[in-house]
Amino acid sequence: MAAGGLRLADMLARIAETGRSLIGAEEPQSLIERARVILGGEGEVSGTARARGFLDAYRALDHEARLDFLRQASTGLGADPAALKAAIERYEASGEDIDARALHLAAEPRSQELIRRLNRAPGAMPDLLAMREDLLRHLREDPALAALDEDFRHLFSSWFNRGFLELRRIDWNTPAAILEKIIRYEAVHEIRDWSDLRRRVAAPDRQLYAFFHPALPGEPLIFVEVALTADIPAAIEPILAAGRETLDPAKARTAVFYSISNCQNGLRGVSFGNFLIKQVVEELSAEFPSVETFVTLSPVPGLRGWSVREGIEEPSGDALGPLAARYLVEAKRPGGAPVDAVARFHLGNGARLERINLDADRSERGQSQGWGVMVNYLYDLRDIEKNHEAFAESGVVAHSAAVRRLVKQAAQAGQAGGVRA
Amino acid sequence: MAAGGLRLADMLARIAETGRSLIGAEEPQSLIERARVILGGEGEVSGTARARGFLDAYRALDHEARLDFLRQASTGLGADPAALKAAIERYEASGEDIDARALHLAAEPRSQELIRRLNRAPGAMPDLLAMREDLLRHLREDPALAALDEDFRHLFSSWFNRGFLELRRIDWNTPAAILEKIIRYEAVHEIRDWSDLRRRVAAPDRQLYAFFHPALPGEPLIFVEVALTADIPAAIEPILAAGRETLDPAKARTAVFYSISNCQNGLRGVSFGNFLIKQVVEELSAEFPSVETFVTLSPVPGLRGWSVREGIEEPSGDALGPLAARYLVEAKRPGGAPVDAVARFHLGNGARLERINLDADRSERGQSQGWGVMVNYLYDLRDIEKNHEAFAESGVVAHSAAVRRLVKQAAQAGQAGGVRA
Amino acid sequence: MAAGGLRLADMLARIAETGRSLIGAEEPQSLIERARVILGGEGEVSGTARARGFLDAYRALDHEARLDFLRQASTGLGADPAALKAAIERYEASGEDIDARALHLAAEPRSQELIRRLNRAPGAMPDLLAMREDLLRHLREDPALAALDEDFRHLFSSWFNRGFLELRRIDWNTPAAILEKIIRYEAVHEIRDWSDLRRRVAAPDRQLYAFFHPALPGEPLIFVEVALTADIPAAIEPILAAGRETLDPAKARTAVFYSISNCQNGLRGVSFGNFLIKQVVEELSAEFPSVETFVTLSPVPGLRGWSVREGIEEPSGDALGPLAARYLVEAKRPGGAPVDAVARFHLGNGARLERINLDADRSERGQSQGWGVMVNYLYDLRDIEKNHEAFAESGVVAHSAAVRRLVKQAAQAGQAGGVRA
Amino acid sequence: MAAGGLRLADMLARIAETGRSLIGAEEPQSLIERARVILGGEGEVSGTARARGFLDAYRALDHEARLDFLRQASTGLGADPAALKAAIERYEASGEDIDARALHLAAEPRSQELIRRLNRAPGAMPDLLAMREDLLRHLREDPALAALDEDFRHLFSSWFNRGFLELRRIDWNTPAAILEKIIRYEAVHEIRDWSDLRRRVAAPDRQLYAFFHPALPGEPLIFVEVALTADIPAAIEPILAAGRETLDPAKARTAVFYSISNCQNGLRGVSFGNFLIKQVVEELSAEFPSVETFVTLSPVPGLRGWSVREGIEEPSGDALGPLAARYLVEAKRPGGAPVDAVARFHLGNGARLERINLDADRSERGQSQGWGVMVNYLYDLRDIEKNHEAFAESGVVAHSAAVRRLVKQAAQAGQAGGVRA
Repeated sequence: MAAGGLRLADMLARIAETGRSLIGAEEPQSLIERARVILGGEGEVSGTARARGFLDAYRALDHEARLDFLRQASTGLGADPAALKAAIERYEASGEDIDARALHLAAEPRSQELIRRLNRAPGAMPDLLAMREDLLRHLREDPALAALDEDFRHLFSSWFNRGFLELRRIDWNTPAAILEKIIRYEAVHEIRDWSDLRRRVAAPDRQLYAFFHPALPGEPLIFVEVALTADIPAAIEPILAAGRETLDPAKARTAVFYSISNCQNGLRGVSFGNFLIKQVVEELSAEFPSVETFVTLSPVPGLRGWSVREGIEEPSGDALGPLAARYLVEAKRPGGAPVDAVARFHLGNGARLERINLDADRSERGQSQGWGVMVNYLYDLRDIEKNHEAFAESGVVAHSAAVRRLVKQAAQAGQAGGVRA
Repeated sequence: MAAGGLRLADMLARIAETGRSLIGAEEPQSLIERARVILGGEGEVSGTARARGFLDAYRALDHEARLDFLRQASTGLGADPAALKAAIERYEASGEDIDARALHLAAEPRSQELIRRLNRAPGAMPDLLAMREDLLRHLREDPALAALDEDFRHLFSSWFNRGFLELRRIDWNTPAAILEKIIRYEAVHEIRDWSDLRRRVAAPDRQLYAFFHPALPGEPLIFVEVALTADIPAAIEPILAAGRETLDPAKARTAVFYSISNCQNGLRGVSFGNFLIKQVVEELSAEFPSVETFVTLSPVPGLRGWSVREGIEEPSGDALGPLAARYLVEAKRPGGAPVDAVARFHLGNGARLERINLDADRSERGQSQGWGVMVNYLYDLRDIEKNHEAFAESGVVAHSAAVRRLVKQAAQAGQAGGVRA
Repeated sequence: MAAGGLRLADMLARIAETGRSLIGAEEPQSLIERARVILGGEGEVSGTARARGFLDAYRALDHEARLDFLRQASTGLGADPAALKAAIERYEASGEDIDARALHLAAEPRSQELIRRLNRAPGAMPDLLAMREDLLRHLREDPALAALDEDFRHLFSSWFNRGFLELRRIDWNTPAAILEKIIRYEAVHEIRDWSDLRRRVAAPDRQLYAFFHPALPGEPLIFVEVALTADIPAAIEPILAAGRETLDPAKARTAVFYSISNCQNGLRGVSFGNFLIKQVVEELSAEFPSVETFVTLSPVPGLRGWSVREGIEEPSGDALGPLAARYLVEAKRPGGAPVDAVARFHLGNGARLERINLDADRSERGQSQGWGVMVNYLYDLRDIEKNHEAFAESGVVAHSAAVRRLVKQAAQAGQAGGVRA
Repeated sequence: MAAGGLRLADMLARIAETGRSLIGAEEPQSLIERARVILGGEGEVSGTARARGFLDAYRALDHEARLDFLRQASTGLGADPAALKAAIERYEASGEDIDARALHLAAEPRSQELIRRLNRAPGAMPDLLAMREDLLRHLREDPALAALDEDFRHLFSSWFNRGFLELRRIDWNTPAAILEKIIRYEAVHEIRDWSDLRRRVAAPDRQLYAFFHPALPGEPLIFVEVALTADIPAAIEPILAAGRETLDPAKARTAVFYSISNCQNGLRGVSFGNFLIKQVVEELSAEFPSVETFVTLSPVPGLRGWSVREGIEEPSGDALGPLAARYLVEAKRPGGAPVDAVARFHLGNGARLERINLDADRSERGQSQGWGVMVNYLYDLRDIEKNHEAFAESGVVAHSAAVRRLVKQAAQAGQAGGVRA
């Protein structure tokens, strides 16, 4: 030891800097081959370095080469057919639970284990999310990618389990690097600049909450913007206005969720929104005991598209409310769920369609999507469970008496009911 | 809204305090029934509260009732046989990867999904670990529990993936609540009191590193104790001695891993040790550039038991070194792995058996396990990969020339070689 | 610049490591000479390094040499007599405020400015405190040191101004390095070991608060230990007992300050206790709304000494209560303040002498100081101001009716009233 | 106690909310009277609340009323003349140091003690700074305020002692609330918006360091902006340009201090700049070992005004360099210090006037102050001490050979040397 003494630090540095020479020398050229090496090893000794090298190599590829790899991984890293066949036979012979479990393992695609092993590299998660984003961009045109996408979705659902998420309040003491991302990720009502942001996070009657995950420090997963108000709001402009008067939050009686944005495309299909709303309701209830009503101010993104498909190009002002009510309550997709994506989300959470507001969003997008209509969904904890179950089991859309009257008007006006999109 | 106003905070409080009355009213009595309800729901609305209620109810049960539930969950929450049968048929008809994936999902035991859903409750992880500890206590006598144990092990492996672990240095500025756990969890060389602990974490030539996981704040998963020394140590007592002289760490040439302890019984089978050693080597290399040698001072826990089984009740002093060398290099389990558990771990990591030290551990345990023999395993990064592969593929035990001489002595002394335990 | 380029980092390192050679070469030998150099410079360029060097040199001196310097600084760094004379003359001529201010400055001893300049060195404060500790150790026997001590006291009073102190709760999540100091500094009821400490900071009905100062990170200045109880306690043992039952703090009606310890000898004469108690009362009030009574359980350290001086060597049990009452209410120092130091402190804060408890402290110290008597001082915010003023102006000792009865008993029993110590 | 139980929390709340009624009832109307009450009390019991009340009352006053109080405090809270007279007599009789110290205390204006006691209120420091800002605004027109200003300056110098300052790197992870202040306080090269700020703190070759004080959390005291460059820069525009190319900081050889801004008007006369530059040099040296040169890029704010006073309305391009050189090296104020404020600062720190850059600042301010001339001051640690002393003692302006040549040119061109402003 004394003489030829090991300089581990130097070794590590050399490995890192010169392209991981020890490993690299024997490293195969193609990513899919490297994936097989990672799957073949015990993953214990050089696994971390190999995974890091793999992710770096992937990132260095051009668009086409990445897609090639994703396709190969999706179609070429399935379960081992021979082992699967044997497991099936054992299960069919015994019918035992224990053999069903063995079958479960034998049927697991190796691509799933690949993703797990890649995640052992330090800081792997952003790379894995980016990889899935690549994949999602081509999923529609290239169905062969669906299998790998399913692996990602499955693992992300497990890793981003509710129990691992951390709720944080975002305010004016939040690092600029995170605030900058809030500006970028806001998907409903654009944040125009830092002054606009400041109004949404620094005013005493405005709040912004986000979920974070320990493997993605500094990266919000989803966030919700909240306005504390006296009453249920009927339009978005007074909430976002620059010169508006501030309300003493101790006097607020209503909390309005006026914007919810998912931040990570790579996590598509892993849903946090429901948990976020519930936890923010708890936070607000604890901090502002005077707040009694929890409600959204939501867009109706599919209204105009659906109406046009229904043959209604430009409804009269009087007809717009009934039309929107009918759309939200009765327009269903083949499986029975509402056509409107925002409605699906809140009704699925157990909220009630409370009020339809005309002339509520004068922005270009608001006009083009839904002629300026916005909607309040009400979260009333006493009914949430009941609403959710009726919705999940029978597609029942919980709605207020006022909305019911509008639906009736629509029917009387001769608009067809129960339309399927 | 105005009049019959919703007091959500009150509702939440009532739910929490009165035993979750809304849910509780319809809550079935037995845990296994509650588990089925949790599995049946979409898990979105009341899922978190139900999961929390379930975990609390489990904890409130007595020993027998818990075991009953664990048995039922292990045997009664397998995959749905009809769905599994259909999936098998589809796969057998097509042989397609996509159908193998569907089969994988269909074969997944529902108990796995149950554990995932329970983990959505806030602070669920300690409960889940405790549940698995209950399970492990009875695993040997009750093989029916093995299936559920496998679910836990599988999910914990995914959730405690290397990418989610955080390395922290433990020192005298660490909160007492964590230090107290280090005292409790130390499994190799007992920490007698806070003064003993202080010597191991506060001296400039002593370090202690631990892995933590975000879902278990304040709970170390595994830790390693390190001594910075001039040379490779030949005994444990000088390292632990109260009155020893401190070495200026800038002059240390050797880092000695003299104790590694797993802290969470509930994570049995999820291995962190290898990652921990590698990352601590990196930390130490960066902080103490003069350190050139990374080595353990390890017990030989199985030596005496094996020797007695071999018919050697009390070896002479001269015979002890060769005996230990033969035991470590040649005594193998049926599958080819070394009999000695500590040897399996370090050799499996790619370390080399460097030196055998007689009269190295005078403690009662050291005497009773291995007549006071301790061993240095050397982590030489240049050979780690090669050693690991030779070990994994052919069971080759990397060892120094000095150890080789001892093995030869043993052979010449007529001790039988190549023994199987 | 390019060629003979300046390597500032090297320069800095050289300076630091080789004993600050640039400065050192011309550095005078004696500390008092170095002090004069520091006072002579503008203090801007090399001042910080010189101050650091001075403090290191002081620390390296032996006991006698330090004392020599302190004496020289105390007697030799007064104001400049000529400048002072001129300032006096100007003031006497004009009688103007502005000239009084100039006189104030001219009369300032240069030793004060020396301490200010030493405090510019990074991490100077612990050195300055240690310097004053040296000084205090010899103050009684060496009155020449009083002048310098007065400079320290004056500057420390300004620097440790209430506005700069930070209150922190000490609990089981506090770093061990700080907890260790709590053990060491506890001056009233000794903390025997870490288990004893744990009982005082980790139980839900026990609290410990300390003041910290930003220039002394990790060093408590003063701390108070609090027990949350049902009623006003009559003895210390039930509060400290190892096996005692814990009280749900939400049900506590009384907060008991049972120990207050100053930690920094070097800050003698700079008083924090009053501020600490007031702020802890605020903290507790906010966190435990059920607590209505704030009271101490205090020793009577001077009772026995005073009694013996009064000729009472061993009072009967019946006589002890009246004796203690008379001592606390009537025994005064020449200036009119109570003889008892603890009484002076709490009564000076505006507290009321509420109850005298016999057989309240069975420890050796408790017996030897006051035959086991302990006292409750009550902090009743409604009377605090009034009590304080009556005490400060006329020496009135606020006390309860029960104590008044005891004083009367003493008088009737023929004990002399209004004793002066 | 039991019945009429004290609800301290309520009491505290009542006091805080209803205008501190207990105290307020007897509170005198005028601020100067309240000041006398604060000075009269022991300051121990109600002092903190009184101080807080005083500061709130001051803030609620209008402009004129504040000024009235400041005048009264400046002229009416001097030392007690009788006590001062007695102290003078004692000192004149004895000539002893101890009596000089007593004289020092007797001559201390009570306004100083007032400020100390106000600082005991929680969060008092921002109020005290604002009070001094009020004072400074009127100092020139109202010399009676000078006395109080001197008290503030003296105490702030002590409280903002170098030993209490904390250096922090400001970057893109800094809270927005602090970054917003950086934008506001930048006094040299305006930060136009958040994108401009981002370029100055988030680029790898840009750094920003600030001093903070524990009594002013979230408030920078002074900050310096640093550019890491290859060579000494000759103009400001390339440093601030939006589209500039980033330099790998590991390759930088020069650190340029291109902007230094004081943030707190209330701290005028308490100087931090010298300490800041020295400590930032240390930080940069440690982090970027390749940086060998530390230099400023500074404006010459007084050049044009001085030139015009000298009769030079519009120098030719050729004459501008010599003119600037003569101005910086030879134009002195009556006391011998350079006319130029920026020059006074850096030369006083021991820097050398290294280079004069023409056409270096095309901004309006740069043109109007100094025809676009900017200057590099070089911080060469080997000469800093020597330069500083020569400057402090004899007003010598250290300058490079290149600057010397310019001065000579100016002389030869017939410009008058040694001008006094």
